[in-house]
Amino acid sequence: MREVAIIGIGQTTVEEHWDRSLRDLAADAILAAFKDAGREKVDGIFIGNMMSGICSHQENLGALIAGWSGLQGTEAFKVEAACGSGAAAIHIGAMAVASGYMDSAIAMGVEKMTDTSMPETTAALATAADADFESDQGVTFVGLNALIMQRYLHEYKWKHADFASFSINAHENAMHNPNARLHDRISARDYREARMIADPINLLDASPTGDGAAALVLVPLDSLRGSNVPRIVIAGSTAATDSIAVHDRRDGLWLSAAYASAVKAYGQAGIQPRDLDLFELHDAFSIMAALSLEACGFAERGQGPRLGLDGDIRPKGRIPVATRGGLKARGHPVGATGVYQVLEIVQQLRGEAGENQIEGAKIGMAQNIGGSGSNIVTHVLRRS
Amino acid sequence: MREVAIIGIGQTTVEEHWDRSLRDLAADAILAAFKDAGREKVDGIFIGNMMSGICSHQENLGALIAGWSGLQGTEAFKVEAACGSGAAAIHIGAMAVASGYMDSAIAMGVEKMTDTSMPETTAALATAADADFESDQGVTFVGLNALIMQRYLHEYKWKHADFASFSINAHENAMHNPNARLHDRISARDYREARMIADPINLLDASPTGDGAAALVLVPLDSLRGSNVPRIVIAGSTAATDSIAVHDRRDGLWLSAAYASAVKAYGQAGIQPRDLDLFELHDAFSIMAALSLEACGFAERGQGPRLGLDGDIRPKGRIPVATRGGLKARGHPVGATGVYQVLEIVQQLRGEAGENQIEGAKIGMAQNIGGSGSNIVTHVLRRS
Repeated sequence: MREVAIIGIGQTTVEEHWDRSLRDLAADAILAAFKDAGREKVDGIFIGNMMSGICSHQENLGALIAGWSGLQGTEAFKVEAACGSGAAAIHIGAMAVASGYMDSAIAMGVEKMTDTSMPETTAALATAADADFESDQGVTFVGLNALIMQRYLHEYKWKHADFASFSINAHENAMHNPNARLHDRISARDYREARMIADPINLLDASPTGDGAAALVLVPLDSLRGSNVPRIVIAGSTAATDSIAVHDRRDGLWLSAAYASAVKAYGQAGIQPRDLDLFELHDAFSIMAALSLEACGFAERGQGPRLGLDGDIRPKGRIPVATRGGLKARGHPVGATGVYQVLEIVQQLRGEAGENQIEGAKIGMAQNIGGSGSNIVTHVLRRS
Repeated sequence: MREVAIIGIGQTTVEEHWDRSLRDLAADAILAAFKDAGREKVDGIFIGNMMSGICSHQENLGALIAGWSGLQGTEAFKVEAACGSGAAAIHIGAMAVASGYMDSAIAMGVEKMTDTSMPETTAALATAADADFESDQGVTFVGLNALIMQRYLHEYKWKHADFASFSINAHENAMHNPNARLHDRISARDYREARMIADPINLLDASPTGDGAAALVLVPLDSLRGSNVPRIVIAGSTAATDSIAVHDRRDGLWLSAAYASAVKAYGQAGIQPRDLDLFELHDAFSIMAALSLEACGFAERGQGPRLGLDGDIRPKGRIPVATRGGLKARGHPVGATGVYQVLEIVQQLRGEAGENQIEGAKIGMAQNIGGSGSNIVTHVLRRS
């Protein structure tokens, strides 16, 4: 299996793009990635997206986006794994290039969330949950996460305020990311006093919706021989599933798919958690940040919030997370998020993260979570 | 790149499955494929589906279907390419196994179309067209195909009745397929007198909707060494796109993506069109059957209907098509169709097609069309 490198990155800002449609955003990201890679075409395009059918009345994104990006003819497919769609597209793109079937590919994600009414978007997001046994009961996606957080607070005796550091760190880091959705510092008091959304999740526990697209250009590593292109290698690319319904899990406070995909990714890359210089985790809700850190081996069970309280997750900490704002502040354009995460690691490994730069970053991990932990894709990147 | 073989097939009947949900149908097909292959697990699952978000309020099909099939933990993703989703899932599954990342995979398709109202299903199908520039004008999917057929009749001076053979052959073949949606012979008169849907497409030009699921078990060919499992090899697996909107094409009567993917598939398999023993084409509408035959090299431009009139497409003809009923009579559960097509070729190459058996079939091709020819995936299978 040949190794795969990322030689180009492109992204749009994450915001309410009233003047850009789904196809515009996708093309913007692809053309930016091409410019970065010094290329104009690829053998295939893999598009992470979750909600285009409902939010834009548009499927067939492969043909749509290939054509709109000037790549008509190129094979192109949509890949869906709920909020994990972006990383799923990278995972599949990496396999396509590794197989030798393609000598280059675009792996990208795009989501247009703000052209619809908020109830419609909320209903679209709920399609990530079990339609027959969760959504039909009226529980929203934030509601499911609230149930998990409620239980976590009860089980491990934390207070809601103990989760503040995840959001404060994310907002702080996003200040230096021009593509981030939110640019405002928040304090512990802001966090404490934020409007309640679904008890105990308040506004500052939750990542914002937004429109956005991000794209990567993938090629075989050996095609870079002799060139001076930064060698950013996909050292691990793995996925695992858990039950789609939270109530079907033996233990609702353990992200078994995050654990399984992380362990496999560590194995592929030949590393331990301590070897990572940064971790772009899936902080869609602050509880998910804590659970991810536990599942990936950075904290004992029930001790995730400790890493926030001790400053371990900050840029100079033991395991920096959300280094460019994370889902919480860079924003969470659902099907694109996993690509933003990996793109931001590429920036870090290239030394192009500006004020957010993690000094000497050589190995980074991104973990993208679909559903309430039901479909999880993990990538380890290495500068070689 | 290692060669990939299909060692298991499973399918549900295509019909209105009022007692089976999306997940039930998918699990039925997977478990049947496992039984056929003598296996109980795989490394990954690729699920072709187009409309689950709208028709079942359900995305995150990977986690849903892995869990419901007893494969919780296994990585699993949805792949979407409109009506070409099924073959796209096979294409990606084949790359995953070819890459060495997986040593086995399920490639499958599932669609649940009849739990929604017909206007809802029609709107869902229209998401395969260009939402901003076609569907927004009120044109349905059958409407787009009607415009193409109208133009074809005008341009090449055929009469509507000249297309009858495609539907008659499909219905005749479906009589012997217990999984087919329709089991009724039709005559030229039935065809001529059928109810008009969108002029010139009448009811017997159009494939029926339906619920269904089909699954394949993929493994590396070299893993079969020493076993007496039938060696059905994926000799070609290719895709190409065209503009999503029909009006954006230089020539609306030429399926450029069908041509491109077929030529590439012939090249991969090292064959010519004349080497094929059968061709499972995408006869969603009779006009698409004619255009596919032309694009794939079986007829000159504008001469597709001739193959029907001359009997070339019948079981003992030069290039048998729709051998188990095709989309027209086996049925067209959109995202599953491409998998049914390939599954039926496996049956033929194994000599398990019963009354529909094409004698001595050794090489077959399936072509799955997404949108109005905008995303096309072609597979060549060979018994080796």
